[in-house]
Amino acid sequence: MFELLSTDPDSQARRGRLTLPHGVVETPAFMPVGTQGTVKACSPGELEAVGAQMILGNTYHLNLRPGLDVIRSFGSLHRFSRWQRPILTDSGGFQVFSLAKLRKVKEEGVHFQSHLDGSKCFIGPETSMEIQSVLGSDIAMLFDECPPWPCGEAEAEKSLDLTMRWALRCKEWIAKHDPKTDTGARQHHFGIVQGSGYARLRERAAKELAAMDFDGYAVGGVSVGEPEEEMMRAIEHSIPHLPAHKPRYAMGLGTPPQILEMIARGIDMFDCVLPTRLARHGTAYTSDGPIHIKSKRFEFDHSPLDPDCIHPLTADFSRSYIRHLHRAGEILGLRLICLHNLHFYQSLVRNAREALEAGVFAAYRAAFLSRYTASKITPPS
Amino acid sequence: MFELLSTDPDSQARRGRLTLPHGVVETPAFMPVGTQGTVKACSPGELEAVGAQMILGNTYHLNLRPGLDVIRSFGSLHRFSRWQRPILTDSGGFQVFSLAKLRKVKEEGVHFQSHLDGSKCFIGPETSMEIQSVLGSDIAMLFDECPPWPCGEAEAEKSLDLTMRWALRCKEWIAKHDPKTDTGARQHHFGIVQGSGYARLRERAAKELAAMDFDGYAVGGVSVGEPEEEMMRAIEHSIPHLPAHKPRYAMGLGTPPQILEMIARGIDMFDCVLPTRLARHGTAYTSDGPIHIKSKRFEFDHSPLDPDCIHPLTADFSRSYIRHLHRAGEILGLRLICLHNLHFYQSLVRNAREALEAGVFAAYRAAFLSRYTASKITPPS
Repeated sequence: MFELLSTDPDSQARRGRLTLPHGVVETPAFMPVGTQGTVKACSPGELEAVGAQMILGNTYHLNLRPGLDVIRSFGSLHRFSRWQRPILTDSGGFQVFSLAKLRKVKEEGVHFQSHLDGSKCFIGPETSMEIQSVLGSDIAMLFDECPPWPCGEAEAEKSLDLTMRWALRCKEWIAKHDPKTDTGARQHHFGIVQGSGYARLRERAAKELAAMDFDGYAVGGVSVGEPEEEMMRAIEHSIPHLPAHKPRYAMGLGTPPQILEMIARGIDMFDCVLPTRLARHGTAYTSDGPIHIKSKRFEFDHSPLDPDCIHPLTADFSRSYIRHLHRAGEILGLRLICLHNLHFYQSLVRNAREALEAGVFAAYRAAFLSRYTASKITPPS
Repeated sequence: MFELLSTDPDSQARRGRLTLPHGVVETPAFMPVGTQGTVKACSPGELEAVGAQMILGNTYHLNLRPGLDVIRSFGSLHRFSRWQRPILTDSGGFQVFSLAKLRKVKEEGVHFQSHLDGSKCFIGPETSMEIQSVLGSDIAMLFDECPPWPCGEAEAEKSLDLTMRWALRCKEWIAKHDPKTDTGARQHHFGIVQGSGYARLRERAAKELAAMDFDGYAVGGVSVGEPEEEMMRAIEHSIPHLPAHKPRYAMGLGTPPQILEMIARGIDMFDCVLPTRLARHGTAYTSDGPIHIKSKRFEFDHSPLDPDCIHPLTADFSRSYIRHLHRAGEILGLRLICLHNLHFYQSLVRNAREALEAGVFAAYRAAFLSRYTASKITPPS
């Protein structure tokens, strides 16, 4: 399922390939986030056009709305949403902790109220696995508890104990039910390394999950409000204890520089809402750092969003026109920046893959970071 | 510029062809409304794909935002918005009366405050012509006063007197400046027949404008809150007094049945916000009448929005999925209904054109209306 094609001589960066029921994913890979069965403002065809190889769907959201019966009637999330390429679904663990109301964590799972209508709900390891099997994702994530940040060591360890017991229950459910995707090929499952900021706990989690032999491993409990150095340390504490021949996924990350830094630390897969979320506020990524399109300085700017990162879907449109669309609240403005930002992220990881193949990843990483961050010191006027 | 290809033996419906600087428009034609330099939620490529031959832009809005200097820097609204086919711009007359604050109508034009920021503005016949010449539309509308409905006969006549004096001033401005589009070909100009609900005034307006020899004629002051019979009468009172060899445009109309009725009364061109505005509320047109996609009855409906009116851009997506998108507030849901509704309107007029060519317009009109309105009596459950 995962081929490790090469490892960078200058860092821990890896060039790999995932072969999944709905297609091949070249790594390092970035997955746009399609929380509710759609990536914000994009059609499936546009996502393919900007080079998305795999997208993420959310168990928590899709289970509440449209509800499993609807998706079951179609046979899979793929058939419901008409996205043909691979899908990874998260387990609902993170959303239960970030969105749900009045949650009660018990041994069996989490009782909570829906953030939509307050109705009483429950997700435990088995329910999460069952929901994800109905969604029919290519990769399903194990159900975990995501501790808040900061978190005391005792609390973090107690939470990790629960996450590990839940991991075993997920494994048992998978062994018993052997869930399949709509292609007939089996669903894959990734364990999630928790342990907050504690090296000892991260190591323990990674080793115990590795021993359970999942198809891949994620580092979770990152991007939960901690400083960037903490985030990097959580990765560094986890990676050495994960098997080299399995894919590694950093959940919910990050900015373009963070993604390159994580690739250099041995991460293969990413997902992040930033490209689509920032688009809503009119922020576009460029090779010289992010720009805010509503700024007066773009009023007469006839150039495209990033002259050095152009996609056919957005190439025709000027900063001046997109600025106008955003100021006027027109949806096309949001669409164009969403597509551009997703293309920017796909270019980032595609360029990283090409640099790894050419043996020049260190130079690529340095050149990108130098140019991208220079603008923060002297923004163009 | 306008060829009258044939006239229906059973009604006043006409099959025609407009040859404009940016392309050919087959009539009867429907123009999607691109108020702020974009048709709601659609890209120019999608609009072409659903068959839009010409779109409408708004002088009032574009003059306030992004402002003429921005559009002048691009050379035209075409180059700014990247829409390559013909554009018709309205004169701002209607918006000054429907949107602007604290307006004062004087002989020279209308003083008002911007609905965006309250700033003081002025549009008169010459300013409107000048703004539209900078926009570089294929067809510019004359600046008129649009009286409210209902309106007493004396008031309507006084308003029409002013509209006619303004028409003359527009004509003088055009003769003096001979405005060109960005292709180098001359801009065309349509007069607007006002006169409220009074046959005598409509006749007078049509005859006086016809004598001024514009490139085409619109019926204005319709769809301003009057009952449908009044709207039809306003058309019937105007059409007989307009020259047969010039195109005729009913402004701001209408529902699909109204459009067929207007075609039967000799109208060649239409614009209306309904297909895109109703999409925002989740209303999709179908051959059996409009449906509200959020309705529970579509929860498990795997069929497309209208199985008898399918476009490749929306064909893949089920009512169930689009319902989910609308309930979740996802933009793709709005996009899909916008595209479908615009395709529905383009199909309506294309089918009318084909029926006229085949000499079966009466049968087409009857069949469409019978099926479309039947559902209002017995909605499918």
